[in-house]
Amino acid sequence: MSLIVQKFGGTSVGDTDRIGMVADKVAGFRAQGHSVVVVVSAMSGETNRLIELAHSVQERPVLRELDVLLSTGEQVTTALLSMALSKRGVKAKSYTGSQVRILTDDAHTKARIREIDDERLHRDLADGYVIVVAGFQGVDENGNITTLGRGGSDTTAVALAAALKADECQIYTDVDGVYTTDPRVVSEARRLSRITFEEMLEMASMGSKVLQIRSVEFAGKYNVPLRVLHSFKDGPGTLITMEDDSEMEMPTIAGIAFNRDEAKLTIEGVPDMPGMAYSILGPIGEANIEVDVIVQNISHDKTADFTFTVGRNDLERAEEVLNQVAKDINAEKVTSDSKIAKVSVVGVGMRSHAGVASQMFAALAEVGINILMITTSEIKISVIIEEKFLELAVRALHSSFGLEKEPNDEGAA
Amino acid sequence: MSLIVQKFGGTSVGDTDRIGMVADKVAGFRAQGHSVVVVVSAMSGETNRLIELAHSVQERPVLRELDVLLSTGEQVTTALLSMALSKRGVKAKSYTGSQVRILTDDAHTKARIREIDDERLHRDLADGYVIVVAGFQGVDENGNITTLGRGGSDTTAVALAAALKADECQIYTDVDGVYTTDPRVVSEARRLSRITFEEMLEMASMGSKVLQIRSVEFAGKYNVPLRVLHSFKDGPGTLITMEDDSEMEMPTIAGIAFNRDEAKLTIEGVPDMPGMAYSILGPIGEANIEVDVIVQNISHDKTADFTFTVGRNDLERAEEVLNQVAKDINAEKVTSDSKIAKVSVVGVGMRSHAGVASQMFAALAEVGINILMITTSEIKISVIIEEKFLELAVRALHSSFGLEKEPNDEGAA
Repeated sequence: MSLIVQKFGGTSVGDTDRIGMVADKVAGFRAQGHSVVVVVSAMSGETNRLIELAHSVQERPVLRELDVLLSTGEQVTTALLSMALSKRGVKAKSYTGSQVRILTDDAHTKARIREIDDERLHRDLADGYVIVVAGFQGVDENGNITTLGRGGSDTTAVALAAALKADECQIYTDVDGVYTTDPRVVSEARRLSRITFEEMLEMASMGSKVLQIRSVEFAGKYNVPLRVLHSFKDGPGTLITMEDDSEMEMPTIAGIAFNRDEAKLTIEGVPDMPGMAYSILGPIGEANIEVDVIVQNISHDKTADFTFTVGRNDLERAEEVLNQVAKDINAEKVTSDSKIAKVSVVGVGMRSHAGVASQMFAALAEVGINILMITTSEIKISVIIEEKFLELAVRALHSSFGLEKEPNDEGAA
Repeated sequence: MSLIVQKFGGTSVGDTDRIGMVADKVAGFRAQGHSVVVVVSAMSGETNRLIELAHSVQERPVLRELDVLLSTGEQVTTALLSMALSKRGVKAKSYTGSQVRILTDDAHTKARIREIDDERLHRDLADGYVIVVAGFQGVDENGNITTLGRGGSDTTAVALAAALKADECQIYTDVDGVYTTDPRVVSEARRLSRITFEEMLEMASMGSKVLQIRSVEFAGKYNVPLRVLHSFKDGPGTLITMEDDSEMEMPTIAGIAFNRDEAKLTIEGVPDMPGMAYSILGPIGEANIEVDVIVQNISHDKTADFTFTVGRNDLERAEEVLNQVAKDINAEKVTSDSKIAKVSVVGVGMRSHAGVASQMFAALAEVGINILMITTSEIKISVIIEEKFLELAVRALHSSFGLEKEPNDEGAA
């Protein structure tokens, strides 16, 4: 008899038939004696419909009112799912964010959760109710409706699981778990039965869209076991937990992540002097452009080359800023390249296993791929390569680290 | 500088263009320096859409959840109207029923308002905000969302006006006021510039659909001046107020109301004895059928005829009940007639003016209409006639009481 928080996204509750299927699933857990809290998103398409309505009234809608508007989407789903459960003989009660009292700050459309009142929920759970909570929304201390921004429903689920000290937080999606890499690129990609929060964070930030980064951070912070499952297929999914020190079998590498959303900028012939990096990246930061990988070439004849990557959408603006910077600091010229990709190997095991980087570089060299930039963290090594080599690189790395095999079958890694 | 509560129904906010037009109107009142609280319904069609969703999930939706679902309709409108106002440079803030704290009982889908917290509203009004409140909804003392049932937005507006001690509660509709009778029947029908609550109640209960009875009762109880106006045409509308004793010009008759929704049942040859009326109407009441006009004929040869009207929808059921009653009390037979209509003259003036009844009967006799039943109250005389004579009767009465003329122009009445 566990307490489980389950989150179903917009596609899973996309129409009333699907809401019925979700109700069947929830009813199954109840029948097994579990206490269940369900967090739901707006029915797919509904949030966009509401946003269009808002924009047809006001070009840049007042954010307070946008939250009032958008929060109705999830509220509708909670009512319908509660009805569907009740139709199946399962006692259920819907809650809006403010009814739970999911207290947030007052940053409309991107509010942060501060505190959750769990008293009433515990009472209803004790009374045998399934609790259906509107995801993505909360209330500030003045009673104004707030929303949590993208992926907010995942965050709601994790925050509720933390507040209620749930045994597990299950995120139902359209994939049956987290994979070693994108199965569309590597057909041998394998579903991971477990991954650590840190690895999941790296995978997520690298373009694995299964979970929103914020909810993984949150789950890690409060140590809420998180499980990714398919909404309509049975299966164990992927469990995301803390690293277990006792576990000897933890594989070195969890997976290969990649993304094509970056572009590379180089400012060449920069006079080598203290403060150079700041004089270049300061104006970029002021323009609200996020920088990812940064490399400063070893200076020769008293000038240096400075290369960094930004989101592809920001390339044009970044170039403008950088051209001005080049003039100001007497640099030679600015070049850019948007035909690049980033590939990363991710795994907490590399903390204790040497040789991952050299294995990575060797695997890429073997298939003739030139590495343009390198950046590392404790549990991740990323390389920037030409975009056309992306799939080749991912396959080579997946195979080199033996990710298609279950960790237990592995000889050495 | 007055405090005005304005209510706009579903058609008035039917799409974003119309919401813009409403915003223009509200902005106009603000520009004149008035404080404004706006109560809105769901955009037309939205409530039906939500009800259909509910029914596609559960045949008889749980009422608590139906309220959660339906209340989103008005919430959407409040957000959009607030945006439209803000676009016009008017500070505005939306409120749900629970944000205001419109406290109701817990009778889901037909809750009654108990109390309104006006503190926060007064603060926002003082800060120069237009307040946009979701009509039709409230919250019970356990924080559950409730709805007020049909015409609930009118009730919300009147209740807010009472709580805030507003100078006027304006109900915007698709007609430009209350008329002496239906202009589709009498082309000379005239808009009344004033009518009393009691008269309005009688007019409303007789089929004048301009305002919901409950909101008029409420306005009368708390003496909130109520004005009916057209949403998109300028004009003074009709003011509904207390009877003003000082006013000499109050016309005898305010208007002619009528409806075709009734049917007549007669139980003939009832043995004349004490308790007869109860033995007939008791079972009808138990079957939840409402009875309107009741007439008991003078008994002859120790039996009586007992006639009453019910809603046409209830006729079949009422006949079944009555046939059983006839057997039980040894009555002769039961007959029914659904081709009847009720016509009423309504006016507080008849309290102090004699001769209204005889003038009414004379007018009907003059055009050859036979009166089937008569019933009177202090401010109303109703007759049941054959349905085919309805229009003729209304026209004859309208003309006989000179309703096409402004009261001031009247000689005698």
